Amino acid sequence: MAARIILIVALLTLSSSRALASDPSPLQDFCVADFDSNVFVNGFPCKDPTNVTPDDFYISGLDKVANTDNDLGANITLVNVNRLPGLNTLGVAMSRIDYAPFGLNPPHSHPHSSEILHVAEGTLYAGFVRSNTEKGNILIAKKLSTGDAFVFPQGLMHFQFNLGDTNAVAFAAFGSQSPGLITIANALFGSKPSIPDYILSRAVQLGKTTVDWLQQQEWVDIAREY
Amino acid sequence: MAARIILIVALLTLSSSRALASDPSPLQDFCVADFDSNVFVNGFPCKDPTNVTPDDFYISGLDKVANTDNDLGANITLVNVNRLPGLNTLGVAMSRIDYAPFGLNPPHSHPHSSEILHVAEGTLYAGFVRSNTEKGNILIAKKLSTGDAFVFPQGLMHFQFNLGDTNAVAFAAFGSQSPGLITIANALFGSKPSIPDYILSRAVQLGKTTVDWLQQQEWVDIAREY
Amino acid sequence: MAARIILIVALLTLSSSRALASDPSPLQDFCVADFDSNVFVNGFPCKDPTNVTPDDFYISGLDKVANTDNDLGANITLVNVNRLPGLNTLGVAMSRIDYAPFGLNPPHSHPHSSEILHVAEGTLYAGFVRSNTEKGNILIAKKLSTGDAFVFPQGLMHFQFNLGDTNAVAFAAFGSQSPGLITIANALFGSKPSIPDYILSRAVQLGKTTVDWLQQQEWVDIAREY
Amino acid sequence: MAARIILIVALLTLSSSRALASDPSPLQDFCVADFDSNVFVNGFPCKDPTNVTPDDFYISGLDKVANTDNDLGANITLVNVNRLPGLNTLGVAMSRIDYAPFGLNPPHSHPHSSEILHVAEGTLYAGFVRSNTEKGNILIAKKLSTGDAFVFPQGLMHFQFNLGDTNAVAFAAFGSQSPGLITIANALFGSKPSIPDYILSRAVQLGKTTVDWLQQQEWVDIAREY
Amino acid sequence: MAARIILIVALLTLSSSRALASDPSPLQDFCVADFDSNVFVNGFPCKDPTNVTPDDFYISGLDKVANTDNDLGANITLVNVNRLPGLNTLGVAMSRIDYAPFGLNPPHSHPHSSEILHVAEGTLYAGFVRSNTEKGNILIAKKLSTGDAFVFPQGLMHFQFNLGDTNAVAFAAFGSQSPGLITIANALFGSKPSIPDYILSRAVQLGKTTVDWLQQQEWVDIAREY
Amino acid sequence: MAARIILIVALLTLSSSRALASDPSPLQDFCVADFDSNVFVNGFPCKDPTNVTPDDFYISGLDKVANTDNDLGANITLVNVNRLPGLNTLGVAMSRIDYAPFGLNPPHSHPHSSEILHVAEGTLYAGFVRSNTEKGNILIAKKLSTGDAFVFPQGLMHFQFNLGDTNAVAFAAFGSQSPGLITIANALFGSKPSIPDYILSRAVQLGKTTVDWLQQQEWVDIAREY
Repeated sequence: MAARIILIVALLTLSSSRALASDPSPLQDFCVADFDSNVFVNGFPCKDPTNVTPDDFYISGLDKVANTDNDLGANITLVNVNRLPGLNTLGVAMSRIDYAPFGLNPPHSHPHSSEILHVAEGTLYAGFVRSNTEKGNILIAKKLSTGDAFVFPQGLMHFQFNLGDTNAVAFAAFGSQSPGLITIANALFGSKPSIPDYILSRAVQLGKTTVDWLQQQEWVDIAREY
Repeated sequence: MAARIILIVALLTLSSSRALASDPSPLQDFCVADFDSNVFVNGFPCKDPTNVTPDDFYISGLDKVANTDNDLGANITLVNVNRLPGLNTLGVAMSRIDYAPFGLNPPHSHPHSSEILHVAEGTLYAGFVRSNTEKGNILIAKKLSTGDAFVFPQGLMHFQFNLGDTNAVAFAAFGSQSPGLITIANALFGSKPSIPDYILSRAVQLGKTTVDWLQQQEWVDIAREY
Repeated sequence: MAARIILIVALLTLSSSRALASDPSPLQDFCVADFDSNVFVNGFPCKDPTNVTPDDFYISGLDKVANTDNDLGANITLVNVNRLPGLNTLGVAMSRIDYAPFGLNPPHSHPHSSEILHVAEGTLYAGFVRSNTEKGNILIAKKLSTGDAFVFPQGLMHFQFNLGDTNAVAFAAFGSQSPGLITIANALFGSKPSIPDYILSRAVQLGKTTVDWLQQQEWVDIAREY
Repeated sequence: MAARIILIVALLTLSSSRALASDPSPLQDFCVADFDSNVFVNGFPCKDPTNVTPDDFYISGLDKVANTDNDLGANITLVNVNRLPGLNTLGVAMSRIDYAPFGLNPPHSHPHSSEILHVAEGTLYAGFVRSNTEKGNILIAKKLSTGDAFVFPQGLMHFQFNLGDTNAVAFAAFGSQSPGLITIANALFGSKPSIPDYILSRAVQLGKTTVDWLQQQEWVDIAREY
Repeated sequence: MAARIILIVALLTLSSSRALASDPSPLQDFCVADFDSNVFVNGFPCKDPTNVTPDDFYISGLDKVANTDNDLGANITLVNVNRLPGLNTLGVAMSRIDYAPFGLNPPHSHPHSSEILHVAEGTLYAGFVRSNTEKGNILIAKKLSTGDAFVFPQGLMHFQFNLGDTNAVAFAAFGSQSPGLITIANALFGSKPSIPDYILSRAVQLGKTTVDWLQQQEWVDIAREY
Repeated sequence: MAARIILIVALLTLSSSRALASDPSPLQDFCVADFDSNVFVNGFPCKDPTNVTPDDFYISGLDKVANTDNDLGANITLVNVNRLPGLNTLGVAMSRIDYAPFGLNPPHSHPHSSEILHVAEGTLYAGFVRSNTEKGNILIAKKLSTGDAFVFPQGLMHFQFNLGDTNAVAFAAFGSQSPGLITIANALFGSKPSIPDYILSRAVQLGKTTVDWLQQQEWVDIAREY
């Protein structure tokens, strides 16, 4: 049973990280994720359809202000297949983002989905950075107020910063059951084991001492705090 | 010029109606829809990338309560590629739904995307009907309160009804640049030209007189009212 | 064993209802559906390939006139993955439709495939209704004679009616292992449990008494009669 | 104008040859192929949707016995996007195959679609050859009678032979707007320019004299004879 | 255990033969193929992610000259999911091809991936044959020297021949975890059971005696020799 | 004409940056990119097929040691659709990477393709960092020698470092016509316009002075140096 739990945690972990805007298409009305299966496939196996209930398609709590008491002052509540099993094979997900005053959702990318973010409350500075081009990596950004929405193309590095001295809230729509999440600084400086400092030092043009110091810091995953 | 406008309207119209959860994948950072092109392709041709601006990825007004003064007491504000050109090729879209007290978003389907709906304000009764099965067409429904979310699988008939005597608001996430919309009653009774009454009469087990009367009614498209 | 049978029936039921024109692509020569597996995945798990035989790719009886002795005077013989296991992962299916004189294949949609129908015998009136557009829901229909074919785009509501006083026969080609089937009237009026009458009444502009009466009628699934 | 005609022929030619079971998904109700466009894209550009008519989705003549007066005694009437423009982006196609007594639809493959063939009249010996496996290239074949159907998985070499001394007729369903067609012997011995005889001789274990003789023969494309 | 081994061999065999350039998309970081699972799915089930190691993504020996001592004087070392389990769900594969002097990689096709071949050493004549077109089956070929690369479109028959009297080496890149391989002559003349000689004789315009003789020859699979 | 050139450069630029392992599928034998078209679509429009030549599928120079005289001591020679037009719609690409002694291919990601890298010469330390998981961002890395290959899953940050005091060479295979390239440090510190220092400072836990200094450095794109 302990083993089972470990398996499930691992599975959730693994599955939470990849899925394409073009998720493989559903081959039935639905395929509710079976978190108890010990068979691992691309995504999740399905529950026996005869046991499916409305609750498999239901989740609550998106009206709750999440805890933003961390160094970044932000919190991401992901609603992907790992939390809402009915999403399995359906190619869609969402999230709620809470921002403390001047809170930051740091540069990150979703390997498998584009995103539309709309501001429910507050004022944000949001943008994305294009991939390598002849003209370098171009920043496309804008100030957003309540009721505004902005698009972050799939796989590109993007961020939002709360410009106000009050809390802000935004909701994101994704075209995948698991948009995936790579927080850039965490992957770069916080990986376990570490990327060798002689590599990082050269990659980011910082001295090894600084790199070593950075690698000793805590790199919080604000999407893991639910 | 008039011709051009007609073309664009037609194109918007056409394109607003179909797209898959598995939209064809993007082959560049983005491909902002060029509504002025007279070339018609699957989706939209792209603007010259050198002319792309942050505003191509931006839209405002999602905080505005939409006009629900119609027979159904509801209004759908679609934010798809037709209104937000930056979504072209990115496989995601969203919408805001406003409900007057006891307002109804009537049975409809999105041919090309599943949906997650979350209730921002109010209390809804929401559900979807499964396709033909050995046990018939099964209704999977639930009462939703503020902060709750529910999933509607791709292509299945679904609806929401405002159970309260106050306004309600919900936001939907889609896995397509154009989830598409088929309002069942409108397609059945309001098509132009009409489906012959001898066919409809038999299909819905109603007398021709009733069918003729139904076909003379107005079938409002509450998603067209922006 | 009884449980196993129930499982299989449920699985067939579930799987018969969804699949995309863009079914996930095959990753081997074939993946013959294993109806005896108790693992549920998107589509079906495969039989041990070492046990595959020509009969897994074979079905007979498409020359038989099906029983059209029902209220609609029509019968659909589906040949999808549930009846022909060799179709699993291959993205194609077909069906035979029999029509009694003035028989009707009522308004329905295939959530996951477009269709080409060709008339083998008789004269049909066939058409589809476009999704919501600026100009409403447009009917595109035509009279078809023996040897004619017509296209029904994916997800759109369509129908065929036998204009003649003799039997008619047609064959349909689909781009999915399970095109899926939603008979509109059945989903609207025949769902179990029922869509509340106060919702349906408003949606179809009929009195609750009429709606209640409709919900008490039998809504036959002419595709289930094989 | 002559140039235009050449362009169109070339386009038809080119497009008739490839498309996947997983064709790119439609992004609107339909995208009727515009054969007059001088813009070349993956598939076809669309006609201005305001000019679409029911005839764009219609074709006739599938009841006609095709001319099988050729060395193989067979004829394939393809109904793909090149002949039925409404199929563009919809991922489905069909064909009628006529067989003279002992007529042969020779070994060929469809690069982009699986196939279900059903026998409308006559008796056929039909089969496909698996790709390279540990056990070699395995033939999976069966005798088919009127009303029987058989599956040919995507991309695999397959054939049908009329076992009877009377005409036979079959209809095929495909999961692509252009299943594509490669007649093996034609590609091997009939290519223009020729594959060098020192290569072919070694590949098929035949003397150069025999190969040269084979390359001088006519290799009829029975699917081009409509 | 013996049974298990047979299963795995069969599975490898089966899976090695099909996969699309558009493989179904990954739904997690990776899904390392579990060759020990007795569940068969499209592709492979995954190993328990908690047991994944760097070696699952690693293979060695691509610097070794493979044995080309066979009738064709060539050898294909496939690096697909069957040999490198970490490739499962990732849509990419590669191969090394060794050519003895005047060695031949005979006409073959990859049902599920296009290919780029680059010449690491030597001089090759390489080409592909287009599918059936109005102008027949067109050969597109070129002489390649060290450092040159050439493209073979998905599903089309192609070959390479070593023009030099020294060994040659090339490397191929594929857009699928299992590009698949159909050696034309092997499938045509070497299938088990055989395609009836009265069919082959007519298809390739050779006498039955010649066909029978061809069917008695050995048809080596140079990609099976690792 | 100048305008045309700018357009093309921009187009190349744009297109070089995104494409999925599951690129949209080809709908014809090939669709050679037409760099002169002023129509922008997802990927590229095609050349008139009647003008296609073998050279459209050909490129040379992969045997040339590229110039690694830059701060990182590495050089990436991309062979994607922008340099080899025949790759358009075919879902495959490759690259050659040259490493000076102790040269570094810095942490980067390919938004739209997984990669297999094989070492043609030298000794590399190569690895990738998993996306956010319960256990953080896990590094999966290994020392590679000549003839070894390693897999980098789609969208994940990865790198290679030349462990030797001699030049090294590797070749990569991709499952997309444009795998895309995001060099992490360049996107983070070198974007134009810059990401505000108050955002970066917080994201990477460095003082604004350091961030400002970093943003003033040159961030070379070693893949642009061909």
